Amino acid sequence: MALKSFIEVRPDSHFPIQNLPFGIFNHGGGATSPPRPAVAIGDYVLDLSAIHSAGLFDGPLLSDSDCFHQSNLNKFLELGRAAWKEARATLQKILSSADPALQNNASLRQKALLPMDEVQMVLPIAIGDYTDFFSSMHHAKNCGNIFRGPENAINPNWFHLPIAYHGRASSIVLSGTDIVRPRGQGHPTGHSPPYFGPSRKLDFELEMAAVVGPGNELGKPVDVNEAADHIFGVVLMNDWSARDIQAWECLPLGPFLGKSFGTTISPWIVTLDALEPFACDAPKQVPRPLPYLAEERSKNYDISLEVRIKPAGEEDSFIVTKSNFNHLYWTLTQQLAHHTINGCNLRPGDLLGTGTISGPETESYGSLLELSWNGTKELSCGKASRKFLEDGDEVIFSGLCKGNGYNVGFGTCSGKIIPSLP
Amino acid sequence: MALKSFIEVRPDSHFPIQNLPFGIFNHGGGATSPPRPAVAIGDYVLDLSAIHSAGLFDGPLLSDSDCFHQSNLNKFLELGRAAWKEARATLQKILSSADPALQNNASLRQKALLPMDEVQMVLPIAIGDYTDFFSSMHHAKNCGNIFRGPENAINPNWFHLPIAYHGRASSIVLSGTDIVRPRGQGHPTGHSPPYFGPSRKLDFELEMAAVVGPGNELGKPVDVNEAADHIFGVVLMNDWSARDIQAWECLPLGPFLGKSFGTTISPWIVTLDALEPFACDAPKQVPRPLPYLAEERSKNYDISLEVRIKPAGEEDSFIVTKSNFNHLYWTLTQQLAHHTINGCNLRPGDLLGTGTISGPETESYGSLLELSWNGTKELSCGKASRKFLEDGDEVIFSGLCKGNGYNVGFGTCSGKIIPSLP
Repeated sequence: MALKSFIEVRPDSHFPIQNLPFGIFNHGGGATSPPRPAVAIGDYVLDLSAIHSAGLFDGPLLSDSDCFHQSNLNKFLELGRAAWKEARATLQKILSSADPALQNNASLRQKALLPMDEVQMVLPIAIGDYTDFFSSMHHAKNCGNIFRGPENAINPNWFHLPIAYHGRASSIVLSGTDIVRPRGQGHPTGHSPPYFGPSRKLDFELEMAAVVGPGNELGKPVDVNEAADHIFGVVLMNDWSARDIQAWECLPLGPFLGKSFGTTISPWIVTLDALEPFACDAPKQVPRPLPYLAEERSKNYDISLEVRIKPAGEEDSFIVTKSNFNHLYWTLTQQLAHHTINGCNLRPGDLLGTGTISGPETESYGSLLELSWNGTKELSCGKASRKFLEDGDEVIFSGLCKGNGYNVGFGTCSGKIIPSLP
Repeated sequence: MALKSFIEVRPDSHFPIQNLPFGIFNHGGGATSPPRPAVAIGDYVLDLSAIHSAGLFDGPLLSDSDCFHQSNLNKFLELGRAAWKEARATLQKILSSADPALQNNASLRQKALLPMDEVQMVLPIAIGDYTDFFSSMHHAKNCGNIFRGPENAINPNWFHLPIAYHGRASSIVLSGTDIVRPRGQGHPTGHSPPYFGPSRKLDFELEMAAVVGPGNELGKPVDVNEAADHIFGVVLMNDWSARDIQAWECLPLGPFLGKSFGTTISPWIVTLDALEPFACDAPKQVPRPLPYLAEERSKNYDISLEVRIKPAGEEDSFIVTKSNFNHLYWTLTQQLAHHTINGCNLRPGDLLGTGTISGPETESYGSLLELSWNGTKELSCGKASRKFLEDGDEVIFSGLCKGNGYNVGFGTCSGKIIPSLP
């Protein structure tokens, strides 16, 4: 029989007892109490500091830890998989309909279970470094096609290593934060001088990102078959991109201001343990990766992804693409192992973006660059149409795993474009 | 008459009373007391926490601040230029030969003035984000020449904006830290598959880096004429580079593992106030920069830079290049203004590397890539010769401004290459 909580959870909820994603919340604007860790359960957040103070985390790794009395999850992430499993087991037990400890303790329930719509979520992690990969073959092919033409659309290195660049950590914001349209230089066609002004090609990128748990010492790479122990979980991520700024600046050192004006992540980190029932084989890799990237099992997850745009003044949002995490060619564990093979140290809370997750069909492309083929096609968006994002557009990502009678979901990751400074 | 300290300072010292660079030190391995802020004076460090506790920081901005009782300088950096000037004025006063407060207080002197060779320096700042620019025209031209040939060696965008990429913050280490030769993929010529192993083209890059003071809010760019108020000071920086890894991975997203295995900075941050007597005009910029990069005065500093290599087993080190900070085309303030023009937020302690500082002459190139012309020439290094770095090589940077009867110096920034993991 399926595990069931004493808390009523709607069948279409993203957050049943099988999920229990971790986040950080404020209650009452944080004035009376500091931000603290929680898991989502149905329409509630469960305050883990209250659960810990009540003595319900009674396992050997967590009972004496202060990791749930912190304003971010980094200390919990650092503890590693054994502690994460202990937390999950404890929480599934005390939330289950069979267990009385929380269910029958009205005062603790009142203190620890807060309606989700009464709290404010904040960034769940202190992000030391943010790296963005480029792991979808369809996305790499589309970009190559658009910018260099169909011959050799994908660079020869792409099939040998998970390409990535360092991103900007300071401008990572939580879902719901407005995004100011960036200004910058763009190059018109031909030999005219660069123009300056608000980006004319503002885009989203449909990504997910792995949250690093225990790090590694500088100079000590992580084995690809042990890399999963360094990954706590996954969030939705919108790697907002200004295509005109990016195109002009990127030679020879890659993306910079075309990306660093903002990156949005979803508030709830879904753990690898919750995703495990949705694991599936990653695409076959040809040529065979070098030994340091060859893993015993190359694992993806079957996570349905969807992007909607809600234009200013519209009541409704409109689906512009549907993709799936399982389109990734390079796995999360290969990304992490590659990242450390040169000795680079990762730290708890580091974020590893997957890169835009495009599928093979036109309707599954993960960015407007691809969907509008760099502005050469209009995309229908209700009464409106789009090549790139307009001021007032709200972009909403969602992600969902469909289980047998339950979902494991990511909620949404959204942001609205507001006009540039004058 | 020149300002003079009651502490004897050798004439060739980098750290007279005119300099007073800031750092963080440990005494006794940090076991008995936490790391804390200091300035360098001659062969001593002056413990700023002791000076503050003794009530000698009696100005309005610092007397009640706990910024000198922290294990990094970030809180002091955040206070801004008025507080930095107050600190400098106070310290120059109490260290001067005319002032009795510290000079005549034997117990405070004993507590606060520690011989430099008895303390351990640690990273002076918590670095949220590290950005590396590409601001020397000679370096850009040499790289273009080597990799793309002399025609259009410099990309057209280069003269319009300070090109940069996001670097890796976690692997920034202090001078004196060994650097493990990174392993990774490199591509031999032709169509053979990539090789894997220890880098065969390990290099230094002679750089300096600006340390950010007060940051800016996300979405709110910094005006180029106010940018200097966001820069606390400057350090020496060695942006170690594995040229074979970098060359293979960098298309299309720029440098990644070819750089992220380690970046070394010098322990002492020399303030812009100390550098001001050495300010000079930056090279004339043609074409004229866009208005957001056009500054009232484009300022460089006359800082002589030198790189020495000390091969394993040699008694001596050998000078391999001499350059100068004043070769930079894009100024620190233009770099900072450009960084924020898209709304990107900077935070106190962020590091902005200048990029390799090459001069126009062969003997002033800032990397072995340029000095050995990508391994086509041997460089003399005592009895040995070098194309790229060998295991056991110690690379030592120094930087010095020659004043009228005194120096303002940066000390050294060094690191030794140790062999790869087997």
